[in-house]
Amino acid sequence: MKANLTVHTQSHDYPIVITSQCDLAKEVAPYIKGKQVMVVTNTTVEKLYLQALVEGLQADFEVLTVVLPDGEQYKTQQYIDQIYDALMDNHCSRDVTLIALGGGVVGDMTGFAAASFMRGVNFIQIPTTLLSQVDSSVGGKTGINHPKGKNMIGAFWQPQMVLADMHTLTTLPQRELSAGMAEVIKYALIMDADFLTWLEDNMSALMSLDKVVLAEAVARCCQYKADIVAQDERESGKRALLNFGHTFGHVIETHEGYGKWLHGEAVAAGMVQAAQLSQKMGWISEADVQRISKVLQAAQLPIKPPAIDTQIALDLMQHDKKVKSGQIRLILLKSVGEAVVTADFDQSLLEAVLTETL
Amino acid sequence: MKANLTVHTQSHDYPIVITSQCDLAKEVAPYIKGKQVMVVTNTTVEKLYLQALVEGLQADFEVLTVVLPDGEQYKTQQYIDQIYDALMDNHCSRDVTLIALGGGVVGDMTGFAAASFMRGVNFIQIPTTLLSQVDSSVGGKTGINHPKGKNMIGAFWQPQMVLADMHTLTTLPQRELSAGMAEVIKYALIMDADFLTWLEDNMSALMSLDKVVLAEAVARCCQYKADIVAQDERESGKRALLNFGHTFGHVIETHEGYGKWLHGEAVAAGMVQAAQLSQKMGWISEADVQRISKVLQAAQLPIKPPAIDTQIALDLMQHDKKVKSGQIRLILLKSVGEAVVTADFDQSLLEAVLTETL
Repeated sequence: MKANLTVHTQSHDYPIVITSQCDLAKEVAPYIKGKQVMVVTNTTVEKLYLQALVEGLQADFEVLTVVLPDGEQYKTQQYIDQIYDALMDNHCSRDVTLIALGGGVVGDMTGFAAASFMRGVNFIQIPTTLLSQVDSSVGGKTGINHPKGKNMIGAFWQPQMVLADMHTLTTLPQRELSAGMAEVIKYALIMDADFLTWLEDNMSALMSLDKVVLAEAVARCCQYKADIVAQDERESGKRALLNFGHTFGHVIETHEGYGKWLHGEAVAAGMVQAAQLSQKMGWISEADVQRISKVLQAAQLPIKPPAIDTQIALDLMQHDKKVKSGQIRLILLKSVGEAVVTADFDQSLLEAVLTETL
Repeated sequence: MKANLTVHTQSHDYPIVITSQCDLAKEVAPYIKGKQVMVVTNTTVEKLYLQALVEGLQADFEVLTVVLPDGEQYKTQQYIDQIYDALMDNHCSRDVTLIALGGGVVGDMTGFAAASFMRGVNFIQIPTTLLSQVDSSVGGKTGINHPKGKNMIGAFWQPQMVLADMHTLTTLPQRELSAGMAEVIKYALIMDADFLTWLEDNMSALMSLDKVVLAEAVARCCQYKADIVAQDERESGKRALLNFGHTFGHVIETHEGYGKWLHGEAVAAGMVQAAQLSQKMGWISEADVQRISKVLQAAQLPIKPPAIDTQIALDLMQHDKKVKSGQIRLILLKSVGEAVVTADFDQSLLEAVLTETL
């Protein structure tokens, strides 16, 4: 099976192609404009999918490769510099196309390198994890971490196309499949209560890698995100809702050190905290919080953060990109399927949520 | 006197304010949106203009400062990191405004930091050199150098406003005034033969810092550039004409090492080389080349590059951002006041120009 979505952005429209299994090179080739291609991947994905992609492209293009170490802890300036150096050493010009072959880290780094090399060159995303297929490959957010904060350096930069092949999920460790499912569940919680019911019904098929059901979930999530991005590319308004659970989650990731908790795991626990605060605000019920916890658990996700001192958690929240003039802003649930961005919550309720989870 | 131009860009319109002498803080304050301001300057400009600006802003804003060393050789990732670190250490949020107080290097670096911090924050340019007033402060090009090439890492990012105060030119060393004049002359050569006559008539007033004549020249140059940028923000077409003399000039800068030749000096010698090639193509006359050399000399600019081996020069040209699929493209003069981008020139004529200047 093969599905096509179109993402509308300020600079250009681009397709997201979703396949159950395909020849990666054949699908991306029509979107490569110049003669030079640089495929950026990591040491894990390299072994699985790099050779076939490179061989498939070599007939028509000069193909260069950069293999980064695997992990969020390498999403730094130092490794972006490796990409820049390879581009310069190989005399790449402004018509080079960068291809990100891997998960969110590879996508974010390749995208930022593409955004900043010669002030912007083309790039294509081949996300090979569920998380990157439903989240980071749509919407043009690219970037790296700063030692003091996640995703602090970056750019908005849209790809020429995204190719999500469900076959690549068959080699994904179960823990990463679950982490991706956290973002899938997020769309249901902030956008569509019916999709939450669909997920509750199909979670076991998804977790056992049924490619048809997976493709439907991925297509729905990409469509939700594409709709939001088309309305609010630069995250001045509605796009912020996609960060549901993320402010709490970032606290976990930063406190524990990048790499110990997977992003999706931190978001899962963070979504429960955000749901708890929404319940304390009187917006959703205790039963709703239980239902959210249950579907996350069905996806084998954590629903409780590690012990973090409340004051430290509050300090870490101050570094969040959503902070405006010193005011913490959170995404909370008005109801299941409807989220809002707000700075108008009782600080003591936030502290209660942070303290209860100790 | 005070003049206002408006620059139209894809993301937003912004004003260029040109004054003979003003209170810098008062002029920029209306364009600052949040509460936090970070002024980035260098050790030279710091002593001249920083204190008054900071004191003027402190009544209404939290004002932070970053002082970089002065020089093109510091336009590197290492010093961008200093800006990022200061932003993070001071808990700056997405509504911070960065102000570039200085020449092109400060402007390019501050602009790139603004483009990439949290995927983009507001910034304001206060260019204090003639070069940056007529060139780099208009059009949104930001960036840093890579060890193997100038301006290789960067972004297009538009300021909220630009303030060009002629008074700041009174503290500019004569050599830098001349370097800026090279870009002024460039506009005449590529856009407007009448402006070349005006420059020939007014060069001694300009070089003796007549603020009214300077303001007129700056306003004319900003208008030329604003018109071009409005038509071609991302340099896919007409904007490339602004690089007249720059491909030759970059060879000089890269070969001699950043900082030995000023950018404008290299562009001046490069424009003569581009004019010589245009003459060999039969497009302009030997008298035109002499006229161009003469007005550059009146601005106390070099008209001959240093000795560079022809093959080395050709190799360096291959690294230029205008190279498309391995093909060197140059900006040449069809006539005085009219330029074209072309890859369609006889390689032997290019080599002759490079060899003759040895």
